Amino acid sequence: MKYGIVAFPSKKLQDFANSYRKRYDTHFSKITPHITLKSVFEVDDSKVNEVTSMLQEISKQFKPLSIHVSKVSSFAPVNNAIYLKVEPTEQLQKLYDALHAKSFGLEPEYKFVPHITIAQDMSSGEHDDIYGQLRMTDVHSEEVIDRIHLLYQLEDGSWTVYETFRLSGAE
Amino acid sequence: MKYGIVAFPSKKLQDFANSYRKRYDTHFSKITPHITLKSVFEVDDSKVNEVTSMLQEISKQFKPLSIHVSKVSSFAPVNNAIYLKVEPTEQLQKLYDALHAKSFGLEPEYKFVPHITIAQDMSSGEHDDIYGQLRMTDVHSEEVIDRIHLLYQLEDGSWTVYETFRLSGAE
Repeated sequence: MKYGIVAFPSKKLQDFANSYRKRYDTHFSKITPHITLKSVFEVDDSKVNEVTSMLQEISKQFKPLSIHVSKVSSFAPVNNAIYLKVEPTEQLQKLYDALHAKSFGLEPEYKFVPHITIAQDMSSGEHDDIYGQLRMTDVHSEEVIDRIHLLYQLEDGSWTVYETFRLSGAE
Repeated sequence: MKYGIVAFPSKKLQDFANSYRKRYDTHFSKITPHITLKSVFEVDDSKVNEVTSMLQEISKQFKPLSIHVSKVSSFAPVNNAIYLKVEPTEQLQKLYDALHAKSFGLEPEYKFVPHITIAQDMSSGEHDDIYGQLRMTDVHSEEVIDRIHLLYQLEDGSWTVYETFRLSGAE
């Protein structure tokens, strides 16, 4: 099955993100607003327990995540996606690295840019129009996220949570 | 915030349910297919830890749930909703009762009818038409669900998982 690992921000920040996502994000109905920590990866059903064991170890290592959302940004021209920028921190990077260690079987494809997507799958014209409107939005939010989630994907593309891991470490 | 407690069936059963839900269920985009164990209840943010503590205790008491989906059924005329019937068991009833004990603050409103909704919010005419088509569907599935989830609801009605509880007891 296809799995992914995310952190869900607070209800307040999710509601804020959804106020844009419902109009602009084609994935709106597939998953609630999130920070992707490890994008879709395939795990054989017989090996899910190995993944959850590793996640238990990792979640014991890291303390709750300090999240600072600072502005609206865009991946264009690489990708016509608009997002709430989550300021990179050493802690987030270390967690990302741990979730992409060799033991997980997959090296990361991209440099980690922590973010919460609010718009995607737009034409360049749409993107420029919407980004022009949103980029000046005053976004400023600081919060602590104390857990991460392992999810699996259904055939229609929607995501179900498999398990929660509370961050209880010191790092 | 508004919370709820559910069990998600296997990916296979969720995919099957979604093949109907995408056409007939207005809640399709709000949550993946599930068995509701405790419907929406309000918890003050400061008391969520009490709820998770109680759920930890309860999940240590119960063993993984044996689920037998036996047929397509309907709540009409009380409610024009069509569902996959989950055969009632003593175990499911005991878990339901534990999740509705006085310590949780709310007595159950209805008799527990375990089910996975696949169609709802239809007119009586639509209901009769769709139920006429679906009621003869051969549905037969047995599986074991080894966890339950505490979810909270966003302002747009969608649900985010707050925490997973593995059923690790003997009952």
